[in-house]
Amino acid sequence: MTGTLIGIGVGPGDPELLTLKAARLIAAADLVAYPANPDGFSLARSIAAAHLRPGVEELAMVMDFGLDRRSATAAYDAATPRLVEAVGQGRRVLVLCEGDPLLYGSFTYVLDRLPAEAAVEVVPGISALTACAAAAVRPIVQGDDALVCLPATLPAERLEALLTAAEACAVFKVGRHLPKVAAVLEACGLAAGAQVIVRATHPDQQVMPLDRALDRPVPYFSLVLARRSARR
Amino acid sequence: MTGTLIGIGVGPGDPELLTLKAARLIAAADLVAYPANPDGFSLARSIAAAHLRPGVEELAMVMDFGLDRRSATAAYDAATPRLVEAVGQGRRVLVLCEGDPLLYGSFTYVLDRLPAEAAVEVVPGISALTACAAAAVRPIVQGDDALVCLPATLPAERLEALLTAAEACAVFKVGRHLPKVAAVLEACGLAAGAQVIVRATHPDQQVMPLDRALDRPVPYFSLVLARRSARR
Repeated sequence: MTGTLIGIGVGPGDPELLTLKAARLIAAADLVAYPANPDGFSLARSIAAAHLRPGVEELAMVMDFGLDRRSATAAYDAATPRLVEAVGQGRRVLVLCEGDPLLYGSFTYVLDRLPAEAAVEVVPGISALTACAAAAVRPIVQGDDALVCLPATLPAERLEALLTAAEACAVFKVGRHLPKVAAVLEACGLAAGAQVIVRATHPDQQVMPLDRALDRPVPYFSLVLARRSARR
Repeated sequence: MTGTLIGIGVGPGDPELLTLKAARLIAAADLVAYPANPDGFSLARSIAAAHLRPGVEELAMVMDFGLDRRSATAAYDAATPRLVEAVGQGRRVLVLCEGDPLLYGSFTYVLDRLPAEAAVEVVPGISALTACAAAAVRPIVQGDDALVCLPATLPAERLEALLTAAEACAVFKVGRHLPKVAAVLEACGLAAGAQVIVRATHPDQQVMPLDRALDRPVPYFSLVLARRSARR
C-alpha cells in the first residue's frame, strides 16, 4: 500500500487564485503539511483554509524566516520522515506551498529530501512572477525577448552581469535590497518604466514606479519588474 | 457606463488548472474572445468550455500560427475595436489566453493595442514554465539561483550569451530548434540532466531527457528545462 506525496501551489495570496485541481485535492487530503511562522501563522494554510476537510491531520513546518537558513533546514529535516512514513501508509499527503512549488518554491526543499523512489507529484500554482505582472497589468516578456529572474540578495556585480543582455527582468525578494537593485537597473538601462509590486493579490497590494518606492521600506516579498522597452 | 476588459490565463491545457477566479469570471462574461486556428479550433476556448454560459457572445481571433506574424497582427487589429466598443457599452469582456496572459502570452498583443484609458484587468494563469516543471517534478530554480527564460528561435550566439551566467534556464518554443538548443546547453554546461517537456498537462504529455528527444521531431510548444546542478 503506497500513497502519493503531492506538492501543491496555492498561489500568491488571493484564495480565488487556487486552481480547481488544488481545491479538489486539498478537500480530499489525509495529511496536509505547510510552512509556518514561529507564531503559528501559515500563509499557505490560510489560502487553502476554506477547502480543508474538518479533522484532516495537519503538520506545520515551523521556521523563522528572519533567521538564517538553519531554522528552515531543521524544519524540513524534521518534517520529511513523517511525510515519507504517511505516504508509505498509503495516505494522501499534501505539502502546500505559496506561489508555485518549483519556482523559488519552498517545496523544492522538501523534494531535495525525499528518497528517489518516493511517489511524488506536483500541482503548479500561480507564481509571484505572473501575479505581480497581472497586478501591474504589464507584459513580463513578449515575442523573442529574454527574461532573467533572480533574487535581489545577489551582489550588485552579479546582478549586473546577469541583466546586461536581457530585455526584461523580474527581481525577487527585494526588501532592503531595493536601492542596490535600482542602481543596477539604472546601469543596465532597465530602470525606465520599472515597477515595484508589493503583496500582489492581497488586500493591501501596492504597485509603484521604482523611483517612488525608493523612499520607503518595502517587504522582503516584493518584486521588481522591468523591461527594456517598457510601454505600459 | 463602462465595462472592463479582463485578460484571463486559462493555463496550459488541463481544464482543472483553471483558477477559481477564472472559472467564476468566465461563467459571468458577456463577451468572450480567444485566439483560434484557421480551422476554428481554439485551445484556450476548449480549456474554458465547461464554464461558458450558454448563449454568451464569442469572438474568435482567427490566426495562422504556421505563417509569419502578419496573420496574428491582422487578427488582433481586427478584434481590438470590437473589444473596446463592448467595454464602452458596459459589458464584461474577457480575452482568454493559454498559459499566463503576460509571460509570452497572446494577451500582450491585445494589451499593446488598447487605448491608455481602457479599464483593463488581468487574471494570472498557470504558465507553461511552471506546468512543465510540475510535469517533470523538478525544481526550476531555488535559493539564490538565477533563471533565464528565452525562446529557442534566437540565434545560437544570442542563446549562449544569455545562458552563460545563469544557473537555470527554460527554453520556450523549441520545435525544430531542438538540436541548436542542445548544442548551446552543452557549450554552457547546462546539458546534464536537462529535460524536454512536450504538451504539459495534456493527455499525451511527454517528459524526456534532452539526449533522448534529439532523434525525433518535437512540437513548437515544447519546453526545455535545465539546471547547472540538476539533481532530480
